[in-house]
Amino acid sequence: MSLLIVGSLAYDSIETPYEKVEDALGGSSSYISLASSYFTKPIEIVGVVGDDFKSEHLQLFKDKNIGLEGVQIIEGGKTFRWGGKYHHDFNQRDTIYTDLNVFADFNPVIPESCKESEYVMLGNIDPALQLSVLDQVRNSKFVVCDTMNLWIDIKKDDLLKVLKRIDVIIVNDSEAKLLTSEPNLIKAAKLIKEMGPKIVIIKKGEHGALLFAEDKIFSAPALPMEVVFDPTGAGDTFAGGFIGYLHRTKNHSFENLKRAVVYGSTLASFCVEHFSTRGIENLDNEKIKNRFNQFVELARFESDEQF
Amino acid sequence: MSLLIVGSLAYDSIETPYEKVEDALGGSSSYISLASSYFTKPIEIVGVVGDDFKSEHLQLFKDKNIGLEGVQIIEGGKTFRWGGKYHHDFNQRDTIYTDLNVFADFNPVIPESCKESEYVMLGNIDPALQLSVLDQVRNSKFVVCDTMNLWIDIKKDDLLKVLKRIDVIIVNDSEAKLLTSEPNLIKAAKLIKEMGPKIVIIKKGEHGALLFAEDKIFSAPALPMEVVFDPTGAGDTFAGGFIGYLHRTKNHSFENLKRAVVYGSTLASFCVEHFSTRGIENLDNEKIKNRFNQFVELARFESDEQF
Repeated sequence: MSLLIVGSLAYDSIETPYEKVEDALGGSSSYISLASSYFTKPIEIVGVVGDDFKSEHLQLFKDKNIGLEGVQIIEGGKTFRWGGKYHHDFNQRDTIYTDLNVFADFNPVIPESCKESEYVMLGNIDPALQLSVLDQVRNSKFVVCDTMNLWIDIKKDDLLKVLKRIDVIIVNDSEAKLLTSEPNLIKAAKLIKEMGPKIVIIKKGEHGALLFAEDKIFSAPALPMEVVFDPTGAGDTFAGGFIGYLHRTKNHSFENLKRAVVYGSTLASFCVEHFSTRGIENLDNEKIKNRFNQFVELARFESDEQF
Repeated sequence: MSLLIVGSLAYDSIETPYEKVEDALGGSSSYISLASSYFTKPIEIVGVVGDDFKSEHLQLFKDKNIGLEGVQIIEGGKTFRWGGKYHHDFNQRDTIYTDLNVFADFNPVIPESCKESEYVMLGNIDPALQLSVLDQVRNSKFVVCDTMNLWIDIKKDDLLKVLKRIDVIIVNDSEAKLLTSEPNLIKAAKLIKEMGPKIVIIKKGEHGALLFAEDKIFSAPALPMEVVFDPTGAGDTFAGGFIGYLHRTKNHSFENLKRAVVYGSTLASFCVEHFSTRGIENLDNEKIKNRFNQFVELARFESDEQF
């Protein structure tokens, strides 16, 4: 069965200290689906765009075996647009504008052919919509959910309902602290587990990620990067690599979850090397394997017989 | 030959959200020497105290085979005292007072028997004094240096002279950025290497540490800790575990440097579990090996044949 991805499709205008782009492909579904496409198929996106959504981008998805049956194209409507600006150290991002456009009325309708999807990726959208997706799918065995500080602030009740019905939550460190009012990430992860998900992933940006499952912890390194060109979509790309690898392997052991986290980090490392989705449009198995092996080398150490 | 350690001996008054202690053993030399004592001997400290320095603390060092020939005890003088307070998340520390006392006139005199020491640990003291130590030792093959933001701010010229004459510099992330005016740690490490040391270690607190040597990078994890009781001395303890392990093994290969970093992190993880030096006063090989293996488990992942 297909990997079902629900999220946004958007055009982003991004300014970094290096460059500026207008109307570049963005949205959580774009990053998630492109990243997961290197690991598995079939993939189906559910989302909404206006009739200004470019055919070259529809073609990009089709070329990667990403199904668009669930993508509504609203005649006369305008695609979701976001504008953001990064500052010198990339740790701070200002939203310049958010034009929801057709996304304002987004109501995900899961195509009949996707309702049996065993793997579901709930991209970062209103938790009320995430709940609607969960109501429509049957037999989903493995649901991964992303969210953001906005929903923790204004839709916490719905988010807590979502958390009870999913397998994996992916948050960053500040979201984990906000969700639990707990500054210690280890304690925060425990509190989040008590809210529902058996598996908690806390992303720490340049410091890697922590995976909590089966009462074990895995500390994944981040690839040291001298130049981050554009961090937009890195979190979505991480999620795409993670669930794409799990959909391929159908193995939820802790050992395999660790690999999935590193594949997520691997794809995210390609994402930030270029603007928009460009860094994850032209990958292949060899490039991904080589980059994965850089993560292996970076973190590998062995005990010795000398102590 | 002995491992030579030069730094401060102090009494600290520390307040954390959990507890408060007065006049607890502190100072960089205390932490460094205790940590390294589990790996190697002989160890010699060079430092200065007043005649108020307690005999039980002199005995503690002697019990760990830490030589005190280079420790001047100033009759009628008072030992260096520092008071600090940690806030809820331990990321911020306020210095309440700094009474240098006999440390104000500290002029390290290396005993004749230590001048041939091949391994020298320059604890965090005025770089002018670190230079004086380097002028006194002969044939030192491996010099590790710690420093702090204060010296980068007010004694940068002397610090730059020190950097030209050492093998390893240990700094934390904010010090690396301050020293190089470069927010990217990978670029900062390269810039620091150009200042002299072949090996650069950047500590990132709860996010682990980065080791840069031989154009390679190692990302060491930090042990996830639910309770940090007192972070005072964690950096010195890290340095002590690091140089103690290297003094034991006399092997400076990248593989062994990686292990030394993890042994440093291992000792630091014990340090923060208790106030003052208490967490590193009663360790043994088995406790250290078990904790080291927790680091191995935390960071271990393997590539697979499924991709």
